[in-house]
Amino acid sequence: MIVERPDIEAAARRVAPHIRHTPVLRLAAGEAGGLGLDHPVTLKLDSLQVTGSFKPRGAFNRMLAAAPAPEAGVIAASGGNHGAAVAHAARALGLRAEIFVPEATPAAKRALIEQHGARLVAAGRDYEAAFEACRARAAETGALLVHAYDQEEVVAGAGTLARELEADAPELTHVLVAVGGGGLLGGVLAWYADSGVEVIAVEPGNCPTLTVAMLAGRPQPAPVGGIAADSLGARRIGRIAFALAGRRLARGVVVADSAIAEAQRRLWRACRIAAEPGGATALAALVSGAWTPPEGARVGVVVCGANADPGEVAAPPG
Amino acid sequence: MIVERPDIEAAARRVAPHIRHTPVLRLAAGEAGGLGLDHPVTLKLDSLQVTGSFKPRGAFNRMLAAAPAPEAGVIAASGGNHGAAVAHAARALGLRAEIFVPEATPAAKRALIEQHGARLVAAGRDYEAAFEACRARAAETGALLVHAYDQEEVVAGAGTLARELEADAPELTHVLVAVGGGGLLGGVLAWYADSGVEVIAVEPGNCPTLTVAMLAGRPQPAPVGGIAADSLGARRIGRIAFALAGRRLARGVVVADSAIAEAQRRLWRACRIAAEPGGATALAALVSGAWTPPEGARVGVVVCGANADPGEVAAPPG
Repeated sequence: MIVERPDIEAAARRVAPHIRHTPVLRLAAGEAGGLGLDHPVTLKLDSLQVTGSFKPRGAFNRMLAAAPAPEAGVIAASGGNHGAAVAHAARALGLRAEIFVPEATPAAKRALIEQHGARLVAAGRDYEAAFEACRARAAETGALLVHAYDQEEVVAGAGTLARELEADAPELTHVLVAVGGGGLLGGVLAWYADSGVEVIAVEPGNCPTLTVAMLAGRPQPAPVGGIAADSLGARRIGRIAFALAGRRLARGVVVADSAIAEAQRRLWRACRIAAEPGGATALAALVSGAWTPPEGARVGVVVCGANADPGEVAAPPG
Repeated sequence: MIVERPDIEAAARRVAPHIRHTPVLRLAAGEAGGLGLDHPVTLKLDSLQVTGSFKPRGAFNRMLAAAPAPEAGVIAASGGNHGAAVAHAARALGLRAEIFVPEATPAAKRALIEQHGARLVAAGRDYEAAFEACRARAAETGALLVHAYDQEEVVAGAGTLARELEADAPELTHVLVAVGGGGLLGGVLAWYADSGVEVIAVEPGNCPTLTVAMLAGRPQPAPVGGIAADSLGARRIGRIAFALAGRRLARGVVVADSAIAEAQRRLWRACRIAAEPGGATALAALVSGAWTPPEGARVGVVVCGANADPGEVAAPPG
């Protein structure tokens, strides 16, 4: 169970009609033209992706790779970006969708999923309970399960982001990416593979799925909390991402919620880019100094989501 | 007094170290991947420019073309995007700056200018009164006046936006651009000149500087009001833009404030792009149907500013 460049090439062909090739923005060093860092940085703006996060890349690839999809349609568990992406992709492909969310999911997030036409089912106290209910329902109906991060097609779909980034910014030597369940990290690692580009994984100290797994030598339950929990708060890292990280990750970095909030503020103040906390997490590694690029590095940073209250993108809580 | 492609090439060389080459975002037809239009559209995101609008392009070019600047530094009149851009450019180039604003300018806008280190002077009831006070002060001090739109270097600087757009989206057949004083329109017209690309000018019905001038056969005072007045509310169109429009403009279109607000909402909802009303005005021509592209057109739309309250980019007033 591994993902390679050809899988991502195949994914790119499948998803191309349905997703956006999102742009990069090159920023200078310093305050005047940039983010206040002492080196230039290139942002990959997948916050401008359909549904406001990178998630449709994997959702479309999973559904299209399985075509024709079962009569029962598709099914997923997520109260956040993945749920919206699966609902969107299902409607775009003319499939039925059921999305399982934890019972505590706020009305605003439910609405985001329901506005795409999916059937929403509230089940269980937390994400894991919702996922178990979702899996049981899939076994009953025969619907295609679209995992939020730990399926090969989902990881390969996420890897299309890195394929675009390499095409648009071939000069990069280092790429920073946020980690929750690791779908995006896995895709980025699989794409850059033996290219010489070093991939740096960044996770909130309050959702340290990768750190916990690296310490244990395998995916393990990690604490889930803090300001980025709604998008990066997986209980444990996926097996695919963990396997790829073991072979190819250059470095894992942990950042505080305060650094995430500061990165979010700087994206707004210096660039008018809206990012949710999880979308600003990779940048937080630079803002906080948790990772410092070596001399001569050309640094890319993935901004992977923007599904925050617009009033909070400029002055995030925390 | 005219601006040609070579002036814009010269401007591009001058301003390159100081401004961002902003990206384009290509959107599909329909709701699923786009803005709900029945044709694709390419957005030029100068809302991601330094200081949150296209204005530093002209401000830097004016100051650099005049180098060395006078001991007294630079001076400008504007309570909005131009004021922030001049203040930013002056600081970046190590020049003193005085910015004249109307007395009624709200504290938040004053702060945006002052945070760049400029000296702010409140003078006069409206923009014209502030501009007169500014001009008198310039005569007294010898400071370099940086006009908001009606100087060749300012128009040529704005034209660098079109130069980038043509490089990144050479397939375009039509480009829509908002009009206030006409600095951006003039620059875009000058760049596309005899290229065959048709430029469509879009202005709010509540700030119809171009329409009023076209009806009168020369720049004339126009009403100033509505939701885009803070960025497009010039009293009259500039002489340079008017001259270029007379020779090269394909079409002028007027849009209602409600269409501007709807364009702003769609940019947020479908793309997580923050735009101020003036920044969404060009798109409003498509959203409202005020202009419909001909069969086979490849349409570009300039999003020229994002200096709105973030809470209002998703649900603008009006």
